[in-house]
Amino acid sequence: MRVGLDVGGTKTDAVAIDAAGNVQARVRRTTGWGPEAVAATVVDAVGALADELALPVAAFESVGVGIPGLVEPGTTRVAHAVNLGIVELDLAAAVAPTLGLPVAVENDVKAAALGAYALGDGTGTLAYLNFGTGVAAGIVVDGVLWTGSTGTAGEVGHLSIDPDGPLCTCGQHGCVEAFSGGGTVARRWGRPGELPVRDIFDAADAGDAEAIVLRDGVAYGISAAIRALVLTVDAGTVVLGGGITMLGDRLMAVVGAQLEQSAEASPFIRSLRLDERVRVLPAGSPVAAIGAALLGAHRDTQEVLAHG
Amino acid sequence: MRVGLDVGGTKTDAVAIDAAGNVQARVRRTTGWGPEAVAATVVDAVGALADELALPVAAFESVGVGIPGLVEPGTTRVAHAVNLGIVELDLAAAVAPTLGLPVAVENDVKAAALGAYALGDGTGTLAYLNFGTGVAAGIVVDGVLWTGSTGTAGEVGHLSIDPDGPLCTCGQHGCVEAFSGGGTVARRWGRPGELPVRDIFDAADAGDAEAIVLRDGVAYGISAAIRALVLTVDAGTVVLGGGITMLGDRLMAVVGAQLEQSAEASPFIRSLRLDERVRVLPAGSPVAAIGAALLGAHRDTQEVLAHG
Repeated sequence: MRVGLDVGGTKTDAVAIDAAGNVQARVRRTTGWGPEAVAATVVDAVGALADELALPVAAFESVGVGIPGLVEPGTTRVAHAVNLGIVELDLAAAVAPTLGLPVAVENDVKAAALGAYALGDGTGTLAYLNFGTGVAAGIVVDGVLWTGSTGTAGEVGHLSIDPDGPLCTCGQHGCVEAFSGGGTVARRWGRPGELPVRDIFDAADAGDAEAIVLRDGVAYGISAAIRALVLTVDAGTVVLGGGITMLGDRLMAVVGAQLEQSAEASPFIRSLRLDERVRVLPAGSPVAAIGAALLGAHRDTQEVLAHG
Repeated sequence: MRVGLDVGGTKTDAVAIDAAGNVQARVRRTTGWGPEAVAATVVDAVGALADELALPVAAFESVGVGIPGLVEPGTTRVAHAVNLGIVELDLAAAVAPTLGLPVAVENDVKAAALGAYALGDGTGTLAYLNFGTGVAAGIVVDGVLWTGSTGTAGEVGHLSIDPDGPLCTCGQHGCVEAFSGGGTVARRWGRPGELPVRDIFDAADAGDAEAIVLRDGVAYGISAAIRALVLTVDAGTVVLGGGITMLGDRLMAVVGAQLEQSAEASPFIRSLRLDERVRVLPAGSPVAAIGAALLGAHRDTQEVLAHG
């Protein structure tokens, strides 16, 4: 049995999967703030999974952690995990001595891409597009995570698709993230509410002109990111995940309309059959935790232990 | 010795390379029009290379052909090579019986990507961006051509980077190709001349307002394509090739200015060090022919012969 954790800004999602990849146990914990508290959350969640399964922690083969920060390729060092209060942390070094297990660490979106690949038919090229506060993608080819030359593969959130578009936090105009990232969209909406993107979709349905512009912008950014991933890596499957999936079918309705519009304008785009490539994850699917659990299976255990 | 051919709309460029990848002979032929004439051009060029080296054709190990059309992955069938008058042709079947050699066929931009990779330091992820009449890219990872799920990897020419941009031949607005493709640019310029892109750069230097808009658009499209290839596949090297390289340093001056502008706006984009990733091919470099020659080395000879 392997353990996978998705350490989010508020909650940590933990699963134990068996050799066939099936989830045998799942627990959630509130994520602590800062390096020590995050490490403690990881140790606590692994223990809770063991309790759930009535097994000792030592019965697990490995622990994989997906975390919202930069993870230097091939290492377990996390940097700039701003939502967790982490500037820099070797997460394996912090938890492996206590757990006594090999620990692998990966960026959460990349871990989710591995998880989405495992949940699919398991062939070809898959892009996982995450729409949360920010926007980023993970690309998996024949089961292996694509890292690229410098570890920035899949940063489609900062692809500008409109030089006259809204200002992005990155400083460019019209980035995919400026149109479709939860953070920018909430700021542009500017009205109080717990779930701004849902409020925008509700208000757009009610005919609010400003909401319609924002909603169509969200869909434009998502459809542009899908096109970009197909026109560059030719992803056979594009999985949409992240907070925005809480919109369910309402999301695919507007994204599908945008894809249809580009297919109507361009026979070439139509020939790519974009709509047939897109899947939306069910809200709350533990895809990042499952992918994190698979990290352990992909890594050289000795090498990972050496960091601990 | 392996032979590689770059079958262009007007000229066919042919090289013979030795085991170390060095060009031992190079000839050029005028390309015939239509399936039979193109096949005859291939046979003729291979014979001319043999003559040049005072060798029999049978001394060559293989023939690789790069051709401007769709080549079904893993086959030698060419489709929609409109500039050559070819609707559909199994090129290996057409020439292998006469040549008595294994023949591999690939899209010319993809062949050029392999050639650019071989001419570079031979590691990591390389994107070859071709700006000719149209715009397309080939992506090479660790020496292997990236085909993607459906063979459309690298079609960045039809990535829209401005919804209010010029109409593309594909039907969308603001595609990279609509900004930077030689065909669209010449049409938008609309003045007579043999080398419209050079005329535009000359006129822009002389202060012509319309030319400045077109020239800056060319640079915008190129810089956006570079950003797109780095933000998706994280290409460590982006090689610019195609007819536009006749502009030499004048090209990199305007593209560099655009890259610098995005780096100034965005610390994230600056961190990608785009300018350090870009190389411009010397005009007339036989990169597609060299890459085509390497196709033979990558393929299973038996399998290729079976198509012949």
